[in-house]
Order: sequence, then C-alpha cells, then structure tokens
Amino acid sequence: MEELQKLILAQGEVINDEIIKVDSFINHQIDPVLMDKIGKNFAAQFKEQKVTKVATIESSGIAPALMTAKELNVPLIILKKEPSKYLNSDLYQTEVYSFTHQKNYELTVSQKYISEDDHILLIDDFLADGEAAVGALRLFHKAHATTAGVGVIINKVFQPGETKLKELGIDVVSLVKIKSLTNKTITFD
Amino acid sequence: MEELQKLILAQGEVINDEIIKVDSFINHQIDPVLMDKIGKNFAAQFKEQKVTKVATIESSGIAPALMTAKELNVPLIILKKEPSKYLNSDLYQTEVYSFTHQKNYELTVSQKYISEDDHILLIDDFLADGEAAVGALRLFHKAHATTAGVGVIINKVFQPGETKLKELGIDVVSLVKIKSLTNKTITFD
Repeated sequence: MEELQKLILAQGEVINDEIIKVDSFINHQIDPVLMDKIGKNFAAQFKEQKVTKVATIESSGIAPALMTAKELNVPLIILKKEPSKYLNSDLYQTEVYSFTHQKNYELTVSQKYISEDDHILLIDDFLADGEAAVGALRLFHKAHATTAGVGVIINKVFQPGETKLKELGIDVVSLVKIKSLTNKTITFD
Repeated sequence: MEELQKLILAQGEVINDEIIKVDSFINHQIDPVLMDKIGKNFAAQFKEQKVTKVATIESSGIAPALMTAKELNVPLIILKKEPSKYLNSDLYQTEVYSFTHQKNYELTVSQKYISEDDHILLIDDFLADGEAAVGALRLFHKAHATTAGVGVIINKVFQPGETKLKELGIDVVSLVKIKSLTNKTITFD
C-alpha cells in the first residue's frame, strides 16, 4: 500500500535500528478510514481461503483485525496475554517470549471460540521476531483448527518473523515491508 | 438496542450479583456486524456534538470506539494503562483504581494527540464504578480539551458510574441498561 509507505515516511519515528513507532496513525491514534482500507486489502487477499474466523493478539492488532473480520463477515477472536499460566481447563494456553518486554507471557484463548471446524486468519500490526504469531499458530493447532494465513500491516523483513512463518508453510501477506532502519533511515523492500 | 438485550439474555454469563461476561460477542469473540451497528448508533446520538476525536481505554473498548470514530470520520485515541507512573513529560497521566484488579494503574495519553481544540467522545464497553471513565475525563481536562459525552454499550446502573459522570455534567448514552444481576437473573432498566 503506497499510502501506508507515505504515512510511514512522513510520521513514523525511527527509535533505533530495530524499532519504528507509528503511534500517530496505527498504535495510539488510529485513523479509522485507513484501518477500513487495510481491512479491505487483507480481506481481498484472503477471500479465496474460506476463512471462518479472524484472530489477533491484544491490543494493537484489534483495529485492523476488526476491519478485516467485518469485510470477510466472520467473527473476530482476541487472543489474550496473561502474565502467568492459568489453572483453567477452559483455555488453550501457550508460553510466548516477548523481546520488547524481555519476559514470557501466556497467550490464551477460550476453548469455546476456536475448534477443528475453523480456518483462521491471523492479523497483526507488526511482524518482527514472529514469536507472538508462532504462539498464536500453536493455539490454533491445539484446537485442531487450521491457519488460513497471517496478514501484517508492517513486516520488518530484517527480523526473523517471516522466515519462521514460511518455514511452517504459512502464507504471509504484508502491506508494507521494511528492509532496514539503520542510520534513522527507513528503507522499504 | 433490542438486539443487544436479546444477545445478553441468550449469551451473557452472570458470574455473580455484580459481574456479567459477554465474551461471546463483545469481549473475547467480537461480532463485527454488531460492532458496526453499535458504532453507527453512538455516532447518530452524538452527531450534533462536533466531536473532534473518539477516545477509549485499552483494550475492550477499541472495537466499538473504532466503529464510532469511523462513522463520525474522526481519529480514535487509545488511552493506555501502565502499571506505574512514567517519568515522561510527553504524557498526560492520571492514577485510576481498578475494582476488578484491586489495584491502581496509570492511565496515560501522549500530549501529541489531544489538545485544547478537541471535543472528545469517550466510548467503552461497560460502565460500572466509573473510575476509568472519570480518569479519562481527568486526562482530557489536563489537555484543556472538552468532553462531548460518554457512550457505553452496557451500563450497570446499580453501580455508581453513571451518577459520578452526571454529577460532573457529562452526557451519558447507554445502549443497554442493566438494573440488577441478583439471583443470576438479568433485569434491564
């Protein structure tokens, strides 16, 4: 999406060689018209996949995932982050390492909302190290659901996320690919 | 909204006299078509208010707030919950007590995204004790912004939230009002 590239160049804040903040239109202040376009774009790219549910990881993926789910006319499932393992047999749970916070958390979903009948599209804002996305796929697998693919707004291709997902045979759709953030310069792929 | 009342009766889980879970269509699994209707309903009720921004508190208010912002064609601001006060002069911060978690947290927003030119509509899923909503209004006040009103999907009128907001002169729009949850029975107002 060329519009996204322009916004990233104009408003993205490069924090260091690995981190870019897009708080003014995606993460803190959200442009709903842009989110609607993002949802329509993901929905168009996955429309042949017979997606039964869209899933995302709380909370920064909720906006693009909601718009995608609306366009595909399927429910949205929000995977929750919990600080530690719950003693709860109604949940699927898996441990995920957060490079941002340098600690583990439990990614969880109620067993009520995903099943072997589901073919799930995961939507998130960023793909970086891929730990959260791979954790989400483990939850789908625990429920005997299948994965329709992963859609991300911004894929930092210099980090290993996309490679990890492709090694698992997962179709990854990225609206913008960033090749490098070195020297405070944004280079698209 | 009669449709919401029916869904609450059919799928709401009354946990105790004060708590009802609506995880199957609002909080964990989200029905995007319902959220779109909710957004249109809030937008219609506040359309004369010259709202410049919609705000919500992460994360369960994001879906209805996004749909409201889209309909009003204004940005959405996500107020963030942080475990403790940040030393950051770029943020407005205020301490809020969570009855759910029985501890305080810091509600924060970047100073970049609200200003004295803003007339802000706060949207959330539930209104209960009102602490989070009143905290949000304190943040708007710190930014010299004004409050257009508060819209909530479910107002538990047997708790003090609505009274606290009305005492501050705030217009509250509730799509469903619950009068009581005693004896595992949902009674609407």
